[in-house]
Amino acid sequence: MKTKSIRISTGSVVDFKNQVDFCVGTGRMGLALQKEYQEQLKYVQNAIGFKHIRGHGLFTDDMAIYHNYEDENGNLIDEYNFTYLDLVIDSYVEMGIPPFLELGFMPKHMASGDQTIFYWKGNVTPPKEYIRWNKMIQATLKHFVERYGEEEVLTWPIEVWNEPNLPGFWKDADMEEYFKLFKETFYAIKEVNPKFRVGGPAICGVDDVRWMQCFMEFCSKEKIPLDFVTRHHYTTEFPDHTGHYGYQELSDPDDGFAVLQKSRDIIDSFPEYKGLEMHITEFNTSYIPNNPLHDTNQNAAYIAYLLSKMGDMNESYSYWTFGDIFEEFGVPYTPFHGGFGMVANGSIPKPTFWSFKFFKDLKRGGDEVCVARDRNIVVVKTSDDKYKGVIWNDSRVRNGEALKIDVELPGQGGEYTIVTKLVDEDTCNPLKLWADMGEPHSLSSEQKELLIESAKPLVCSKVVEGDGAKGTVSMSFEVQEHGVMYFEVQKRVFEGDRGYDYKRTMQK
Amino acid sequence: MKTKSIRISTGSVVDFKNQVDFCVGTGRMGLALQKEYQEQLKYVQNAIGFKHIRGHGLFTDDMAIYHNYEDENGNLIDEYNFTYLDLVIDSYVEMGIPPFLELGFMPKHMASGDQTIFYWKGNVTPPKEYIRWNKMIQATLKHFVERYGEEEVLTWPIEVWNEPNLPGFWKDADMEEYFKLFKETFYAIKEVNPKFRVGGPAICGVDDVRWMQCFMEFCSKEKIPLDFVTRHHYTTEFPDHTGHYGYQELSDPDDGFAVLQKSRDIIDSFPEYKGLEMHITEFNTSYIPNNPLHDTNQNAAYIAYLLSKMGDMNESYSYWTFGDIFEEFGVPYTPFHGGFGMVANGSIPKPTFWSFKFFKDLKRGGDEVCVARDRNIVVVKTSDDKYKGVIWNDSRVRNGEALKIDVELPGQGGEYTIVTKLVDEDTCNPLKLWADMGEPHSLSSEQKELLIESAKPLVCSKVVEGDGAKGTVSMSFEVQEHGVMYFEVQKRVFEGDRGYDYKRTMQK
Amino acid sequence: MKTKSIRISTGSVVDFKNQVDFCVGTGRMGLALQKEYQEQLKYVQNAIGFKHIRGHGLFTDDMAIYHNYEDENGNLIDEYNFTYLDLVIDSYVEMGIPPFLELGFMPKHMASGDQTIFYWKGNVTPPKEYIRWNKMIQATLKHFVERYGEEEVLTWPIEVWNEPNLPGFWKDADMEEYFKLFKETFYAIKEVNPKFRVGGPAICGVDDVRWMQCFMEFCSKEKIPLDFVTRHHYTTEFPDHTGHYGYQELSDPDDGFAVLQKSRDIIDSFPEYKGLEMHITEFNTSYIPNNPLHDTNQNAAYIAYLLSKMGDMNESYSYWTFGDIFEEFGVPYTPFHGGFGMVANGSIPKPTFWSFKFFKDLKRGGDEVCVARDRNIVVVKTSDDKYKGVIWNDSRVRNGEALKIDVELPGQGGEYTIVTKLVDEDTCNPLKLWADMGEPHSLSSEQKELLIESAKPLVCSKVVEGDGAKGTVSMSFEVQEHGVMYFEVQKRVFEGDRGYDYKRTMQK
Amino acid sequence: MKTKSIRISTGSVVDFKNQVDFCVGTGRMGLALQKEYQEQLKYVQNAIGFKHIRGHGLFTDDMAIYHNYEDENGNLIDEYNFTYLDLVIDSYVEMGIPPFLELGFMPKHMASGDQTIFYWKGNVTPPKEYIRWNKMIQATLKHFVERYGEEEVLTWPIEVWNEPNLPGFWKDADMEEYFKLFKETFYAIKEVNPKFRVGGPAICGVDDVRWMQCFMEFCSKEKIPLDFVTRHHYTTEFPDHTGHYGYQELSDPDDGFAVLQKSRDIIDSFPEYKGLEMHITEFNTSYIPNNPLHDTNQNAAYIAYLLSKMGDMNESYSYWTFGDIFEEFGVPYTPFHGGFGMVANGSIPKPTFWSFKFFKDLKRGGDEVCVARDRNIVVVKTSDDKYKGVIWNDSRVRNGEALKIDVELPGQGGEYTIVTKLVDEDTCNPLKLWADMGEPHSLSSEQKELLIESAKPLVCSKVVEGDGAKGTVSMSFEVQEHGVMYFEVQKRVFEGDRGYDYKRTMQK
Repeated sequence: MKTKSIRISTGSVVDFKNQVDFCVGTGRMGLALQKEYQEQLKYVQNAIGFKHIRGHGLFTDDMAIYHNYEDENGNLIDEYNFTYLDLVIDSYVEMGIPPFLELGFMPKHMASGDQTIFYWKGNVTPPKEYIRWNKMIQATLKHFVERYGEEEVLTWPIEVWNEPNLPGFWKDADMEEYFKLFKETFYAIKEVNPKFRVGGPAICGVDDVRWMQCFMEFCSKEKIPLDFVTRHHYTTEFPDHTGHYGYQELSDPDDGFAVLQKSRDIIDSFPEYKGLEMHITEFNTSYIPNNPLHDTNQNAAYIAYLLSKMGDMNESYSYWTFGDIFEEFGVPYTPFHGGFGMVANGSIPKPTFWSFKFFKDLKRGGDEVCVARDRNIVVVKTSDDKYKGVIWNDSRVRNGEALKIDVELPGQGGEYTIVTKLVDEDTCNPLKLWADMGEPHSLSSEQKELLIESAKPLVCSKVVEGDGAKGTVSMSFEVQEHGVMYFEVQKRVFEGDRGYDYKRTMQK
Repeated sequence: MKTKSIRISTGSVVDFKNQVDFCVGTGRMGLALQKEYQEQLKYVQNAIGFKHIRGHGLFTDDMAIYHNYEDENGNLIDEYNFTYLDLVIDSYVEMGIPPFLELGFMPKHMASGDQTIFYWKGNVTPPKEYIRWNKMIQATLKHFVERYGEEEVLTWPIEVWNEPNLPGFWKDADMEEYFKLFKETFYAIKEVNPKFRVGGPAICGVDDVRWMQCFMEFCSKEKIPLDFVTRHHYTTEFPDHTGHYGYQELSDPDDGFAVLQKSRDIIDSFPEYKGLEMHITEFNTSYIPNNPLHDTNQNAAYIAYLLSKMGDMNESYSYWTFGDIFEEFGVPYTPFHGGFGMVANGSIPKPTFWSFKFFKDLKRGGDEVCVARDRNIVVVKTSDDKYKGVIWNDSRVRNGEALKIDVELPGQGGEYTIVTKLVDEDTCNPLKLWADMGEPHSLSSEQKELLIESAKPLVCSKVVEGDGAKGTVSMSFEVQEHGVMYFEVQKRVFEGDRGYDYKRTMQK
Repeated sequence: MKTKSIRISTGSVVDFKNQVDFCVGTGRMGLALQKEYQEQLKYVQNAIGFKHIRGHGLFTDDMAIYHNYEDENGNLIDEYNFTYLDLVIDSYVEMGIPPFLELGFMPKHMASGDQTIFYWKGNVTPPKEYIRWNKMIQATLKHFVERYGEEEVLTWPIEVWNEPNLPGFWKDADMEEYFKLFKETFYAIKEVNPKFRVGGPAICGVDDVRWMQCFMEFCSKEKIPLDFVTRHHYTTEFPDHTGHYGYQELSDPDDGFAVLQKSRDIIDSFPEYKGLEMHITEFNTSYIPNNPLHDTNQNAAYIAYLLSKMGDMNESYSYWTFGDIFEEFGVPYTPFHGGFGMVANGSIPKPTFWSFKFFKDLKRGGDEVCVARDRNIVVVKTSDDKYKGVIWNDSRVRNGEALKIDVELPGQGGEYTIVTKLVDEDTCNPLKLWADMGEPHSLSSEQKELLIESAKPLVCSKVVEGDGAKGTVSMSFEVQEHGVMYFEVQKRVFEGDRGYDYKRTMQK
Repeated sequence: MKTKSIRISTGSVVDFKNQVDFCVGTGRMGLALQKEYQEQLKYVQNAIGFKHIRGHGLFTDDMAIYHNYEDENGNLIDEYNFTYLDLVIDSYVEMGIPPFLELGFMPKHMASGDQTIFYWKGNVTPPKEYIRWNKMIQATLKHFVERYGEEEVLTWPIEVWNEPNLPGFWKDADMEEYFKLFKETFYAIKEVNPKFRVGGPAICGVDDVRWMQCFMEFCSKEKIPLDFVTRHHYTTEFPDHTGHYGYQELSDPDDGFAVLQKSRDIIDSFPEYKGLEMHITEFNTSYIPNNPLHDTNQNAAYIAYLLSKMGDMNESYSYWTFGDIFEEFGVPYTPFHGGFGMVANGSIPKPTFWSFKFFKDLKRGGDEVCVARDRNIVVVKTSDDKYKGVIWNDSRVRNGEALKIDVELPGQGGEYTIVTKLVDEDTCNPLKLWADMGEPHSLSSEQKELLIESAKPLVCSKVVEGDGAKGTVSMSFEVQEHGVMYFEVQKRVFEGDRGYDYKRTMQK
């Protein structure tokens, strides 16, 4: 067993930028029309509550936004149809999760080529005429402003395209062309309203150092008043494919942080951009939607560690994705299939869902101060003297080692109440239950209900005595491998009622 | 540790009359107007689903059914007001839980005296004029028939008064007067429709042998074609009161069964009534709504044993009560206060809720056959070869002893999936959490949510290999003191998907 | 037909204080526990949305707040139970309608006498010991602050008692004793937090001039820094009773306004109180809950006139009451029974409901300016150049005269869209339908649904041409006797779609 | 004004097969995944309640049911994915509207060609290998049986393909190939369970006499034990297109009935098929989803006439379609766009919705007997002596003529209550309101709400006296052109309450 001790003294303050709820990822916009998608999103919003949502395919043809026709004089007339867009964005706004807009992909009628990506065939070629692209962007933003109000819409960050450094996502990964797209789009947006906040280049971890450097140089040279920089972050090696599925080794999370720091440093090396916001607009362990790892407790613990540190170099980080209605590699055959989602289809929360819930719970109330942060634990204190913490025991390769952390908090004499919520392979492991059930494809409603019942943390409590003389209260927490625990500690205020005697009752 | 073995052979059939869901108790009718009451009932119905509900106070003045006035000629005119009655019975019918009607208590304007019972002042005196009582009963039943249809209303059993053998519930516990009330009421009802099913005497365990004997003799002598007999069943000793609360010893459950058998025997001693249905229209451990025992895991395990045996001598048995909106001793000050309810105010399920849920789950599908029953376990088999069981480790006085049961089922080679749901003092004990929190009076919504989260069974699963040679599949279950466990066993049908490898995933 | 013309010129601004939604009345607090009550309130809040709710009986015994007992030393110990209070106030806060607190009536265990009022027996005698009353008020307010936060609770106005000028509501209508109660309570509240806003004397129109004068003199003499003054306002003559019901003549509404102005003048005659807020904490036509008038279109039109003028001399005015769960004269036998509610039991909106809805619709958006107000019409203009108005044709005695109003608004050439919603005896008259049905007591769900369907305004629209030369747009509205109409006028912005031709379609 | 008289005598019985609720049409299955689609369907089911739903595209690729791959030996392996199918069919079953299955179109991986139809590209070519088609049908049906139970699934009728007589829907309208498909499919289904009911040829009105004749001859020759015959029915001439929209003349409805009768006669001319069920699996006025006619009151009145007569020669008739989530000609730009739906997007009921609601209301209770039927009216009588009727004043070309019908029913002396619900161009015409509003594309929530408010029937009532001497009760109804009226007549049973006097109230 690994053991560690954390001693927190009165007044201790530690750096911790907890942006767990700034943004979350989603499959393409068109899927947001689906009822099952909406139910999963509602489930996630009710429990966690993200501020933004970001996904692909805003302008892909299933959203039916862009059409054109030749008029009698042979002029090409642009048309915009916001019927489906309204349904999608209305639902987001209603749930308090407006978009972090990603502008892409290319409508067929506007595209210069026919290269597509994914099962759902997103066109990834540059526009035939930039002027029509710009007009479409402007029409869309104006429509948003008219429908949702300027005040609201100006809070929606805007990112230009997705992963142009990959030839699958942007024809030939043509850097010059991307820079053109970026500049055109940037100024088209600012023409609508200069207060819109616009960023890029939304690159992932392939040739990323060169891309980041070149992008910043381009912006600098062109004197573009960039509002923020974006990139992605995945932490697995190349997959080994078997049948439909891919299996990958987890990489060292600290190597990942170094990569992010490198991007940070490039930005800061430009005096005019020093300190500019960097948003991680996608992150996860594996970058493929068919790695069973996503559904495991191991994933939950690994992600918990990321959540404790990603705010160090980034303004925000958006988990890819909130749910499993997601068609990039086709429609999944089974409820658990290694999808990116925090919840499986049927709104079954996966262990990783709870890592997000626990980190969000640290900041409910909004008055917390971090008092301790470490490789396996973070502790905050609220203005009414409650301590809340998360502990994780992540490991890249299973070794069976449990983790015990002794925590000493500032305290007084008298009783303290400790409540813990535990998610580990024994208490909250729907993937195992589903596997034990025989890996059924179509869940009956009873099976779905059972899986949901099994996917809840175990809640426990105890009462400990503070040490008035030392001014401390001590406790210890044990978490097995791949486990994540949330805890709260506060002074027990005994209310009681006339003659109510709990101990007498429990002696029997 | 207590250990036992259960061996179930192919084709074994065991007697087990599981009437867990026939009826449930409730505080007085007027409380059914309350929103919180309705929410608790909905919670219970969604999860368990009872067929009938029975409570006091149908004719108590807060239901405002009966009024009268003198007309200009000095005649007393009867009036009936069904405004509130409709609200209550509509809500029951809508939730699929029509009443097991208890006719009582006496409207003030019809009463011969002013003796009342309870905080809510139910008048317990005989009618001034039986003719007006009879007319009111008939008017009410006719109204039911008109509103809900004859077919529906004829399925509602009717019981005359409540516990007339107690002077608190029936003035002077006057037996002659009760027999008069019974006979008058019986024939008044049959006049409306002879197919109504009517019974009594609804006695509890005080002087009950004599009352039962006399009641049956009375009916026999008067040739009353009684439809069923009713009585109550509580299994605690006299309370020791401290402040507002009462503490009691649990009595031996088997002594209780003997008492019930005695009533059964009295009935059967009358040739014309032999085999007549006996309904336990109230049962619980303690008979006071302020014994903390009701909220414990001990109660859940003790009740589980009762649920396994009460069908042996009774047609049905109605737990007193489904929820904690209940004012007999006043309005409770705290969410946990030893009330009768399966759920505490706020729809927090108590451990005993799960005993009912588990016994109800044994009969979902409706095709089950009991294959084993024992002091601590009952096992049924469904038509598609699934085994379902409940295990309980009840004890009257805490001794710390766990229970291990080895179960051998008929089986084949190949894998079996075992799913268990465990409710014990460590996994599902909201009372302890509330006590650890300091026994707060007013729960914040966060506290309520936390208590509900803590009040769920722990769901686990495993896969075992059947022994093809012996034609068996073996497993063992362990339940700590005061614990209740539900389990299901079935052949694991492996579906799988192209290349999906659960084991490979879990090796990491 | 009465006809009038209203000409509104550009930039015209007219006084109109529209406080239609500041507060609404309700039966006693204990009824707020009921599900049907909550459903009616939800219906009203969803459609109209009031800011506060005010009712009697906060401390009446069905709320079970105050108890006491003698301890072993013979000291009387006070106890407070907030179980039901939390249910009620939670529901209000959740629906965005926190209380305008009325402190009353007297808990039995605190009362100096046993005089009660109403079917539900509110005790109306002074406290035996003011110290215990004060402590109870303080305990209650402190509990509110703890549960809902200081910021929220300080916005809840507090009124001391109800109609002490009536001997039914306050023993002997004892003025000295009321002033004592007021002063004690005032300072008890300010001790908890001086920012609480406290007022009285909550008198109705009996001997009201003398009471108002004396109350102000008392406050002045005692230098009480009163936060606001309250009184009630009813506008019918004495009832003629037949059976259970009372019939009354409507009084001249302008006489009523004069009465209110008199109170206003008394207040303003005290230099230190000049301009102090005056709240009408109850108003309606009839002051009895069994006058069929309340359910008529006549009531709706009469109230519409009041809504157009009561802001002239009052800070607010609270319609008595939002719904018909109300037991002052007993539980009603029938859905329509002349109750105070805007909605009948079953959430059937009465015509008066729509008067409130229409006046509230005038202020949605919150940016309106009144541009015309007259005996029968009020018109406002929003910042985006939409005109909205309400027209009413009230009459105290039916004369069959319709009203036609020609309206000329500032305008341009081009089309304008006019939408009207009409509530009159032909289009929206559920009372008539219910009477035509035979005045049934118990509504089937089909009957309830039909009544609700019948209780909606008739929505119509038309397009008119503005007169560009004159800079006007003209229209005329016709409203029959007892009718109320809402209208909106705005420039028609034609969007159209490729080849869509409405006129061609409608030629067939 | 047209006038007519209907005299109904005691005991009169008239033929009327009211199958208004047997089935309703829907856009392709994949759209059923959408939330907006589900909300519209829920709205329609709550109000009307259909027994079946029929739409295209069960096997189109967005449902993702069929895939295949080559294994290592070069064998093509079939795979079925029921993830989306379960979501769709679960939702139907949950709402009580299981499918009338239409088997089509062709999955890309199974298709012999690449011809597609519609914006959503349904492949309309025969299967490459019939054996794989048959296997897919069987796998799908077996999955249904496993998931929903045999008893349920056997009630779902099955139709083979859609409109094979059109080359757009079936490559080359190849009759021989369709007969092959039919026979293959028929026997594949019967192999799963011979109790499945299977029919065709689902033709529409192009060359339909020849197709029907040949199909019946083919079945007869091949001795196929056909379970039912299907065809479609549209009643407009060829469209005149302007921009995106098509405008058509309505054809004479009686000509349409003659066409249906011709099909009926062909079937009956085969002795072995005489009397075989004929289902109209699609009907409407216009057959294009962009004719504004669909949204008018004219459509409602015309359809009402069809509903009164289609049961004469058909077993059922399925309106095409329930809602406007429908992409055949692309995604609509505007809420009203001449789509097929009974409700517009946003669940705004169109006038035609009410024709269905009114005809359904004739059969609620299920005990009605038709007592009169005529070109403009149908009247039924229930077992409790209530009369219910629908009146319509349809016209193909606007002539402004109102319709007055005098109705004489068997009756007694005493009062009768008449309730009417009226849908005409003045009372319930959301299309006009939308046009008056300027034909907005994106509706704000206020605009949507207003349109819904405007789209309700006007409910009125009156009381008439029966003529005891003549044994009749008389009344007359007036309906303007394109109007539809529902009415109910029943004896007024007066209940009243103590002193309640409606007339006295209304004199004021």
